[in-house]
Amino acid sequence: MRLTRLIQSATSNIPKVRRIVGAPPGTMVYTGERVMDEVHVHLTHYNAGTFETSTTLDAIPSESVGEGTVAWYDMRGLHNTELVESLGSKYGMHPLALEDVVDIQQRPKMEGYDEGVLLQLKAFSYFRDKRELHVEQVSVYLAKNTVITFQEDGGDLFASVRKRLKNASGRIRSRPADYLAYALVDNIIDNYFVALDQIEESLDELEASIMQEPKMETKALIHNLKLALLTMRKSSSPLREMIGRFGDSEHQLIGEDTQLFVRDLKDHVIQVTDLVETYRDVTNGLYDLYVSEISFRMNSVMQTLTIVSTIFIPLSFLAGVYGMNFEYIPELRQPNGYFMLWGVMLTIIGLMLWWFRRKRWL
Amino acid sequence: MRLTRLIQSATSNIPKVRRIVGAPPGTMVYTGERVMDEVHVHLTHYNAGTFETSTTLDAIPSESVGEGTVAWYDMRGLHNTELVESLGSKYGMHPLALEDVVDIQQRPKMEGYDEGVLLQLKAFSYFRDKRELHVEQVSVYLAKNTVITFQEDGGDLFASVRKRLKNASGRIRSRPADYLAYALVDNIIDNYFVALDQIEESLDELEASIMQEPKMETKALIHNLKLALLTMRKSSSPLREMIGRFGDSEHQLIGEDTQLFVRDLKDHVIQVTDLVETYRDVTNGLYDLYVSEISFRMNSVMQTLTIVSTIFIPLSFLAGVYGMNFEYIPELRQPNGYFMLWGVMLTIIGLMLWWFRRKRWL
Amino acid sequence: MRLTRLIQSATSNIPKVRRIVGAPPGTMVYTGERVMDEVHVHLTHYNAGTFETSTTLDAIPSESVGEGTVAWYDMRGLHNTELVESLGSKYGMHPLALEDVVDIQQRPKMEGYDEGVLLQLKAFSYFRDKRELHVEQVSVYLAKNTVITFQEDGGDLFASVRKRLKNASGRIRSRPADYLAYALVDNIIDNYFVALDQIEESLDELEASIMQEPKMETKALIHNLKLALLTMRKSSSPLREMIGRFGDSEHQLIGEDTQLFVRDLKDHVIQVTDLVETYRDVTNGLYDLYVSEISFRMNSVMQTLTIVSTIFIPLSFLAGVYGMNFEYIPELRQPNGYFMLWGVMLTIIGLMLWWFRRKRWL
Amino acid sequence: MRLTRLIQSATSNIPKVRRIVGAPPGTMVYTGERVMDEVHVHLTHYNAGTFETSTTLDAIPSESVGEGTVAWYDMRGLHNTELVESLGSKYGMHPLALEDVVDIQQRPKMEGYDEGVLLQLKAFSYFRDKRELHVEQVSVYLAKNTVITFQEDGGDLFASVRKRLKNASGRIRSRPADYLAYALVDNIIDNYFVALDQIEESLDELEASIMQEPKMETKALIHNLKLALLTMRKSSSPLREMIGRFGDSEHQLIGEDTQLFVRDLKDHVIQVTDLVETYRDVTNGLYDLYVSEISFRMNSVMQTLTIVSTIFIPLSFLAGVYGMNFEYIPELRQPNGYFMLWGVMLTIIGLMLWWFRRKRWL
Amino acid sequence: MRLTRLIQSATSNIPKVRRIVGAPPGTMVYTGERVMDEVHVHLTHYNAGTFETSTTLDAIPSESVGEGTVAWYDMRGLHNTELVESLGSKYGMHPLALEDVVDIQQRPKMEGYDEGVLLQLKAFSYFRDKRELHVEQVSVYLAKNTVITFQEDGGDLFASVRKRLKNASGRIRSRPADYLAYALVDNIIDNYFVALDQIEESLDELEASIMQEPKMETKALIHNLKLALLTMRKSSSPLREMIGRFGDSEHQLIGEDTQLFVRDLKDHVIQVTDLVETYRDVTNGLYDLYVSEISFRMNSVMQTLTIVSTIFIPLSFLAGVYGMNFEYIPELRQPNGYFMLWGVMLTIIGLMLWWFRRKRWL
Ligand SMILES: [Mg+2]
Ligand SMILES: [Mg+2]
Ligand SMILES: [Mg+2]
Ligand SMILES: [Mg+2]
Ligand SMILES: [Mg+2]
Ligand SMILES: [Mg+2]
Ligand SMILES: [Mg+2]
Ligand SMILES: [Mg+2]
Ligand SMILES: [Mg+2]
Ligand SMILES: [Mg+2]
Ligand SMILES: [Mg+2]
Ligand SMILES: [Mg+2]
Ligand SMILES: [Mg+2]
Ligand SMILES: [Mg+2]
Ligand SMILES: [Mg+2]
Ligand SMILES: [Mg+2]
Ligand SMILES: [Mg+2]
Ligand SMILES: [Mg+2]
Ligand SMILES: [Mg+2]
Ligand SMILES: [Mg+2]
Ligand SMILES: [Mg+2]
Ligand SMILES: [Mg+2]
Ligand SMILES: [Mg+2]
Ligand SMILES: [Mg+2]
Ligand SMILES: [Mg+2]
Ligand SMILES: [Mg+2]
Ligand SMILES: [Mg+2]
Ligand SMILES: [Mg+2]
Ligand SMILES: [Mg+2]
Ligand SMILES: [Mg+2]
Ligand SMILES: [Mg+2]
Repeated sequence: MRLTRLIQSATSNIPKVRRIVGAPPGTMVYTGERVMDEVHVHLTHYNAGTFETSTTLDAIPSESVGEGTVAWYDMRGLHNTELVESLGSKYGMHPLALEDVVDIQQRPKMEGYDEGVLLQLKAFSYFRDKRELHVEQVSVYLAKNTVITFQEDGGDLFASVRKRLKNASGRIRSRPADYLAYALVDNIIDNYFVALDQIEESLDELEASIMQEPKMETKALIHNLKLALLTMRKSSSPLREMIGRFGDSEHQLIGEDTQLFVRDLKDHVIQVTDLVETYRDVTNGLYDLYVSEISFRMNSVMQTLTIVSTIFIPLSFLAGVYGMNFEYIPELRQPNGYFMLWGVMLTIIGLMLWWFRRKRWL
Repeated sequence: MRLTRLIQSATSNIPKVRRIVGAPPGTMVYTGERVMDEVHVHLTHYNAGTFETSTTLDAIPSESVGEGTVAWYDMRGLHNTELVESLGSKYGMHPLALEDVVDIQQRPKMEGYDEGVLLQLKAFSYFRDKRELHVEQVSVYLAKNTVITFQEDGGDLFASVRKRLKNASGRIRSRPADYLAYALVDNIIDNYFVALDQIEESLDELEASIMQEPKMETKALIHNLKLALLTMRKSSSPLREMIGRFGDSEHQLIGEDTQLFVRDLKDHVIQVTDLVETYRDVTNGLYDLYVSEISFRMNSVMQTLTIVSTIFIPLSFLAGVYGMNFEYIPELRQPNGYFMLWGVMLTIIGLMLWWFRRKRWL
Repeated sequence: MRLTRLIQSATSNIPKVRRIVGAPPGTMVYTGERVMDEVHVHLTHYNAGTFETSTTLDAIPSESVGEGTVAWYDMRGLHNTELVESLGSKYGMHPLALEDVVDIQQRPKMEGYDEGVLLQLKAFSYFRDKRELHVEQVSVYLAKNTVITFQEDGGDLFASVRKRLKNASGRIRSRPADYLAYALVDNIIDNYFVALDQIEESLDELEASIMQEPKMETKALIHNLKLALLTMRKSSSPLREMIGRFGDSEHQLIGEDTQLFVRDLKDHVIQVTDLVETYRDVTNGLYDLYVSEISFRMNSVMQTLTIVSTIFIPLSFLAGVYGMNFEYIPELRQPNGYFMLWGVMLTIIGLMLWWFRRKRWL
Repeated sequence: MRLTRLIQSATSNIPKVRRIVGAPPGTMVYTGERVMDEVHVHLTHYNAGTFETSTTLDAIPSESVGEGTVAWYDMRGLHNTELVESLGSKYGMHPLALEDVVDIQQRPKMEGYDEGVLLQLKAFSYFRDKRELHVEQVSVYLAKNTVITFQEDGGDLFASVRKRLKNASGRIRSRPADYLAYALVDNIIDNYFVALDQIEESLDELEASIMQEPKMETKALIHNLKLALLTMRKSSSPLREMIGRFGDSEHQLIGEDTQLFVRDLKDHVIQVTDLVETYRDVTNGLYDLYVSEISFRMNSVMQTLTIVSTIFIPLSFLAGVYGMNFEYIPELRQPNGYFMLWGVMLTIIGLMLWWFRRKRWL
Repeated sequence: MRLTRLIQSATSNIPKVRRIVGAPPGTMVYTGERVMDEVHVHLTHYNAGTFETSTTLDAIPSESVGEGTVAWYDMRGLHNTELVESLGSKYGMHPLALEDVVDIQQRPKMEGYDEGVLLQLKAFSYFRDKRELHVEQVSVYLAKNTVITFQEDGGDLFASVRKRLKNASGRIRSRPADYLAYALVDNIIDNYFVALDQIEESLDELEASIMQEPKMETKALIHNLKLALLTMRKSSSPLREMIGRFGDSEHQLIGEDTQLFVRDLKDHVIQVTDLVETYRDVTNGLYDLYVSEISFRMNSVMQTLTIVSTIFIPLSFLAGVYGMNFEYIPELRQPNGYFMLWGVMLTIIGLMLWWFRRKRWL
């Protein structure tokens, strides 16, 4: 699990040594950080009537699947590339597919192979208090009667699907493996809306804070949200194409019965894309608002300064003149000189106030 | 009815719990706010010769339609999802369609099913005084001889169509159900122009206020209008595609006679899109104008300050010099010292004024 | 004739009550302002050998056209919708076409009907002194041997075509009605270049004024030109498509002989689009120039202020110190104290000047 | 030859009377400025073995071409439209083509006619010292065994092709007329790189000057370069399409042997487009740099002013207080009052310096 | 090897004399700088069983290749155009291909000829400490059983492929020449990620420095990174098309077995494009952050100045008034005048502080 402080996260997704330069294709290099001690592999078997589940550490559970049963392997932790390979090769995964599973920098995509289909996408959560966007790469491999999922860390992204399977709620238990793959992807994308909801709350807070008084943190928060939305956009726009290809049943393992559901899923992906774009526009609008707020405040500060200075600087000069020690200054000898000067000074003040009001500075 | 203050509305459209994450597809969750106590269902029957109407609360009116009659159910209030389902299932609405009807976050779209066509779009009104954009999702379901409309709240969006039906004005009473669906959508889109007219008035006011004197509220109003236009754009651009598919008679329930009218409707939708884009450009232009106005004012304020300070600060210094109490300052003993100093100071003032004029600061 | 002051015109094109909301399609509502007392209808008959012309007020001239003669009706003023309808229906104009003719908010377009073709576009003139962009909607309806033009106001947009017809100059008299339609559209588009020329002059003036000294009006003029170009762009980009369809002879009334001329016309429309885009870029460049000019000036003003203040404020402080009335201030008793202080002060001035020069503020 | 000072040139390309509004198509109006007294026509005859050349003033040279010889007419100066027409009609140029040749506002394009092909494009040179972009329209008409070129002014754009012909270097003398047309266009486009090189030098200078110290001229130079690049972009992007059509041998006069060379030429045009876009981005980057430089400087100026003022204004106030002439001010009677005040003042200075340092203003 | 300081590099890629204007096509002109004394040519022969390598200076190594052996010539240094030509013509390279090899300004592209395929692209490295982007053009020519690579300078870009060949690791030794070409291009693109990693580090540093305190260099570094990313974008977007054509096996020399690998390579190129775009957005965001940081600081500086000045300027005026030497100033004679004045002044200070706090300036 990578909990990247967002302020560092837009660029912190690329590990220092991305891949071994010039390595032969199919070389498996885990490009993420090791976040778990041992790899957890969860195996679930089910059909309309039965539901079994088992967990192993750093090993692949042994299996005896009857006909008409769907097997779902859920591997969490990817640093053990041998384990990834031995599970993958059991179901005929191509070396290039295995390389992509452990490379967490993949663009969302669907790639069809002879014996299966690989779907890759990102899971998101946004922690508003810590201002962190959590990004996790998830790979869903669909083979005959089998689904293998690969998650970066131990947190379960698929809890609600697991519950539906256990409770036999909805049609999920009586459907083939491709429906499970759909349900898993749908589950991840449902979570996008939760993350976007958090981001929206942050935008609301931000807007309110700018309206009241722009603070030091404001511009950092705007920057932070820009980067979070940039990251989500990067991942959601290729998703559209991926879901499109999924829905077109491009591979023989994807049945026509699943198509209608994937079309509905596509609607959701388009909504995500729209929301991300809208929030980007809102963020830019808030930036403009922030800048114009600062300008407006500076203008108002300047006016105050100018009014005060412009009134008192000439008056101080006059006072200075009559504070001079020349032996002969006729005005000083006038009996009412002091009061006449006050008259002159009040007149100057009055004229200036009138002029400032005309200039709409007051 | 959601009357969102616009300053909060760009982001306030997404309810806190958007949908139950990982729920099976077809789960009906009303994602809006409950704005009515009871659901109103209005049923209208008509053909060229007859016109009947009836209303029920929290129930579906019983019906006995003869041949050649069109039935129009108009449900207002969506929180009672069972009622939505029982009405929908009577006309064979697909579970995914029912889910979409109660999810008020839908993108405008047309979706064809075996037994009907679902059209979804937003209705807008802009309240200039309160600076509120009211957004309401409307679903129009077209089945054989039947149209079902779903509105979020009790206000009637279709008053004028209802009047045309009652008065048998125009060709509407003698046309089939698809023409009614067209007329209802056309009615909603006619209202877009009314909302845009209000926005335009606000733009005019805004422009005038910037030209006279930018105020504290100006930037908030610009932001407000940006968000309103953003919201309208989000809904009007997918409308183009929806109307296009409507006009192409993609479904057997849409007759060829209606096509020419839908083509005219498409013209209107393109006009809406154009206007929204134009107003967005105008709003951006007003933002630039506002910023340059502030800059210009600050420049002019600075010049005033600089002129006054630059003239009097050196003169005050001179006055200060001759206010010093040194025992021996030869100038002070000059009989005409005071007048000579005035001469020097007036010369300095003259030179400065000449220099400011040359720099075009005066 | 609408002579909109441009500063109001970008938004002033939409009349308060745009159309009757929910009115049946084909309802004719004139959406412009009534600018003429009576509608003028000009009828021109011509063929290679003859040329006749007549004018009526608020009536349609009676007509007796021989074979091989082209009839051109030119109606000016659209508020009398019955007159529009009775002229239109004489030549089989569709109700939707008639509705569009009197709705001055049409996007430029070509629409084909069974008995004719409707071309709609805007005519522009720019009045540099008044800073007004005049926009007028023109509809050209082509039927068999007949052309009907609809103008909003009494000013003649087609004077030069009329002259060519009268003088029998060029091939125009011996060509069919579609060539006349082409010539009329070409005439309107020729005028775009005249308007753009005026705008270009304004851009030149604007540039010169920014270079010399940005004034209060500058930003308003930039805004004004932006809106004018926005309006022209809105109308010129759909023109490209309209002329393209015209040139493709999509309708049987448009002959192949006219095609080559329309292709040439398309070149002109592309030039207009290019020019509008270029002028928009130039305008944006001028805005940047204006903003940076203001910034530069403010920087230069600030430097002056800073130099003067920074030199004299510490010196004034020193003078103030020796103007204090403490009973015992040793320096005041020094016989050369005054001259020594001058020495100190001149040294401070010198150091500051040296430092400012090093900072390149001088 | 138009040597437009760039600061005026973006808009100065459109002559005051662009074309006679409403003139019949094919009307020849020279829209440029008359820059030569007499039109020069250069005729060159060549084949693999022979090479002949002759020049006339205001007349078309008489000609006797054998079989297998290519004739190249090069007309410089376009104000004599009769001469243009008599040369053009000799080789069957269409009236619309002749109209375009003398209208110097053409977009780069290729237009095929029955008897020939017209290629039109712009030639550029950038004079760095004078900051002038020189734009000249060149038309290349290809007929059977004949090429006619039209240049606006007397300067020879084709000197190097002429030299290759004379020296019989390369394959040019033994190739047909279409290869000559290719070579002429290639020659013009080679010169684009020279102009871009000059612009690049200006960008380098500009960047250096901004880094050192932004000057008054800087913003004018940025504006100047923006306009130059805008002008070049306007002409280079349609060039891509033109060369594409040239390379597709759309006309029977363009042989397949020339195709490979035109494909290479297309590469160059794409490079030009890329460079222009890159330089535009660089120019925008320089504008940002300039603005942020000014902001940075102002910030630094403000800090100096604030530090000096904030330190000395309160101190001057204190000095002023003890310069007052109240009869009873106890501090003034303190024997060490003067020195105690200096202590207080130095403490204030110290605290302020510490505070400024904490705020990172020092 | 060109080690261009980035601050000069965006424009420094175009040599002063780019190509001889008007030279015949196929003229070989080396447009780079001569960075090596002698041209190094490395020849490698291999098949599944054997591996031989030899190096020559300024000469082409003699060769005796058996059947089923792949020959790889690697030429470093391109100034000796005769050597390039004699090596190229040995394998039937077209003159236009040779011209492109020595012209280092090529856009990335694949060009097919009868006897071979030419792939051209850029190699990048970014030196963070020196802020230099090193760009080198690489040409890969694929002929039958033969690959020729052309590098600008002596540094070896293909070290890891060479090692894999030597160690017979992976499938590379048993595959045909097209696989070698793929592996070489893959090697170059792997290095893009290394360069992008360095750029990302710079972005992180930059972000941290802006957050702490914007410095003089900040804006130069932003500009620097913008230019680096601009340069990379210019080269990576046409790469997509090139790899696409490579992967489509458009030429008979590219076998189907290589296709799957090239598809994987295309994924990487898209990742590069995405990253470059993302980093450009991040850079723009940092620019905004920088500008708003400066604005915020200036606002805060201004407030300090205003508070101090606004408080003390009126007080100094009052002190000045009572420092005047009028013979009769009644207040001065008040026994408690001095203390009453202090009371007045402290009241003024209090009121101002209250007012500033209300205005949220404190
Ligand atoms: Mg990082
Ligand atoms: Mg990193
Ligand atoms: Mg590799
Ligand atoms: Mg993760
Ligand atoms: Mg879902
Ligand atoms: Mg749905
Ligand atoms: Mg909200
Ligand atoms: Mg919310
Ligand atoms: Mg769901
Ligand atoms: Mg609502
Ligand atoms: Mg309507
Ligand atoms: Mg219409
Ligand atoms: Mg208005
Ligand atoms: Mg209006
Ligand atoms: Mg209507
Ligand atoms: Mg009008
Ligand atoms: Mg014309
Ligand atoms: Mg033309
Ligand atoms: Mg901007
Ligand atoms: Mg001009
Ligand atoms: Mg002009
Ligand atoms: Mg004309
Ligand atoms: Mg010229
Ligand atoms: Mg060339
Ligand atoms: Mg080439
Ligand atoms: Mg350079
Ligand atoms: Mg250079
Ligand atoms: Mg050449
Ligand atoms: Mg290099
Ligand atoms: Mg690779
Ligand atoms: Mg891969």
